[in-house]
Amino acid sequence: MEHKSGMNGGKPIRCRAAVCRKAGEALMMEDIMVSPPMPREVRIRIICTSLCHTDIKYWKMKDPPGIVPRILGHEAVGEVESVGVEVSEVKQGDFVIPTFMAECGECRDCTSSKSNLCSKQPFKLSQGMPQCGTSRFTDLKGEVLHHFMFVSSFSEYTVVDVSHLIKLDPLLISPDKACLLGCGVSTGVGASWRTAKVEKGSTVAIFGLGTVGLAVAQGARICGAARIIGIDVSPYKLTLAKEFGVTEVVNSRSIGDKSVSQVINEMTDGGADYCFECVGLSSLIKEAFACCRKGWGKTIIFGVEDQASLLGVKCMDAICQGKMLMGCIYGGLKPKSDIPTLLQWYMDKKLQLDLFITHEVGFEDINKAFSLLSEGQCLRCMIWMTK
Amino acid sequence: MEHKSGMNGGKPIRCRAAVCRKAGEALMMEDIMVSPPMPREVRIRIICTSLCHTDIKYWKMKDPPGIVPRILGHEAVGEVESVGVEVSEVKQGDFVIPTFMAECGECRDCTSSKSNLCSKQPFKLSQGMPQCGTSRFTDLKGEVLHHFMFVSSFSEYTVVDVSHLIKLDPLLISPDKACLLGCGVSTGVGASWRTAKVEKGSTVAIFGLGTVGLAVAQGARICGAARIIGIDVSPYKLTLAKEFGVTEVVNSRSIGDKSVSQVINEMTDGGADYCFECVGLSSLIKEAFACCRKGWGKTIIFGVEDQASLLGVKCMDAICQGKMLMGCIYGGLKPKSDIPTLLQWYMDKKLQLDLFITHEVGFEDINKAFSLLSEGQCLRCMIWMTK
Repeated sequence: MEHKSGMNGGKPIRCRAAVCRKAGEALMMEDIMVSPPMPREVRIRIICTSLCHTDIKYWKMKDPPGIVPRILGHEAVGEVESVGVEVSEVKQGDFVIPTFMAECGECRDCTSSKSNLCSKQPFKLSQGMPQCGTSRFTDLKGEVLHHFMFVSSFSEYTVVDVSHLIKLDPLLISPDKACLLGCGVSTGVGASWRTAKVEKGSTVAIFGLGTVGLAVAQGARICGAARIIGIDVSPYKLTLAKEFGVTEVVNSRSIGDKSVSQVINEMTDGGADYCFECVGLSSLIKEAFACCRKGWGKTIIFGVEDQASLLGVKCMDAICQGKMLMGCIYGGLKPKSDIPTLLQWYMDKKLQLDLFITHEVGFEDINKAFSLLSEGQCLRCMIWMTK
Repeated sequence: MEHKSGMNGGKPIRCRAAVCRKAGEALMMEDIMVSPPMPREVRIRIICTSLCHTDIKYWKMKDPPGIVPRILGHEAVGEVESVGVEVSEVKQGDFVIPTFMAECGECRDCTSSKSNLCSKQPFKLSQGMPQCGTSRFTDLKGEVLHHFMFVSSFSEYTVVDVSHLIKLDPLLISPDKACLLGCGVSTGVGASWRTAKVEKGSTVAIFGLGTVGLAVAQGARICGAARIIGIDVSPYKLTLAKEFGVTEVVNSRSIGDKSVSQVINEMTDGGADYCFECVGLSSLIKEAFACCRKGWGKTIIFGVEDQASLLGVKCMDAICQGKMLMGCIYGGLKPKSDIPTLLQWYMDKKLQLDLFITHEVGFEDINKAFSLLSEGQCLRCMIWMTK
């Protein structure tokens, strides 16, 4: 690492990065060059970053939007190293969470209470910076390294558009806890709070008890849900779930000939008020939809392995039962506006963040994090840049 | 007709009915026998009835739940002829709308503000009465004639469960206008008001300008929508639409190579806030979904020709765009609780009911109504029992 302060503002920085050179193969630890920030951009020194299933998905992906060489990573926390011109929102030394979602604060979506999809800087699976599509990374031979989800945190330094930054007070939260708010935990908590609008006393069913599912459970508990039913195949996660607010668990491999929806319908006398499909299997959307209460049940979906697949729900089931199907991204949260509320819940001890950090590694060991998350005995592996 | 009053209470009535003896073939005008009402049932003299596309759908249907011989019809108004024991809600001479949906007023759904799907007497495509499944109709040879949608109004007399009756003051509304509230018009108005909860100043797109679509337009206008865009292929309906509150029309056969969703997205700078698929084609659900605004757009569906077909919406489109898909039955209205509001809107001249009645025939000419509605130059054909 060449420097630790903003002394280098305006000049490229040479630093360590974990580069995905070939889809599905171990990241390469390399020295790379990080360009100075352009107008409205901010260069950040990453303090720690964690691994999310979306990184794994794009790491494995051989065809576009999969691309190599690329710097993955989108859940992180860092310190502002330098800012480009026209940046007044943050300054050198500020403690920030970069987010894949932008909030310009001015467009029709940002000024509406109903949307979190900034239309000035819409989320897309770009390989570059949001405004111009170009990269700020090169390897030592001068070859361009592509960005990922406007964050690319698997590098000691990265460049992020200022619309994608949340500024936090470092006295209120430690870097590793703050890091979790960048994607998975916020997505789950937000889905209960903002997307589903879980009501007090209601019943919630959660398919898949990974980080997103367990964060849904915490969000539902904060919203006052009376019953939170967790469904998974992993005894490890089913046991863990109780600490996150899950009140009852169903191991979907231990229910004999019954379907999960039959079991949930029996447990709840007709279905849960809110069902969350957090596994990412399009086949489970149908099952989640079948679990939700006729008349008012909401099924919330996040993402699936094959985005082009059709929703496996019969028209009849939707129509004759008055149910609702909703998709969300980042749990419906506006990054800059809503993350302070999650931070407050953390400080009030309503939101338990420490429970999600099941493993920690140093940056040079980042490939271990990929193994841990893939094996299913891990929620979040915190990757420390300087440990 | 043997009698006009309740003098025959407790005895079968012989009267005229239009019986569907063979799927898709002209109804047979016959004398039939109508049993007296059992406990909690009411025998009604039908004053007038109208034809809805659902009647046509089941009239044509050769396989279950299609069944013959059957008495179709479910949009009607009548006068109570006699009541079974344990009926205190209505008495002989009362003016009533029978509805295919029940409202017991006591179950978890009826007591919730969120559902209109009575769970004590759930809607199903039964061939008999809701409580016991048996029929109150026989022909003169003693053969059972099946019921349809708990109403079977194509008969001078019918028997309906008291939970399926709305009592009205006959001084406030004429029978033909009241008749419309039994299904199609209420479904459309309710979908805007109760299901979508159309907001003031919003933009609405309606696929299909039949009775349901035009009633959606009226509902949207009552809710204060600023723009109501109607889409159809029929110049007749597109012209008619303006009277119902539609502010702009799109003839989907006159848009060249563009798709309807492209046109609507351009007209609305990114999509309508609410899209209603009122044609009943599963292929149009995808198009309606593509027309609705990212971030908050709601797509409302009513029914499709093939209920078993899957929702033709890609998971990706749902997830990454924060849209919502909702099904409804009877527009999300609770029959007994919500129809009085529609009646009030009619009296306040906010809801125009007369515009829907484009044709009238006497009961013996009921088969003409089938031709008229099938040919697409008709909204509602009013069938008068005594004209």
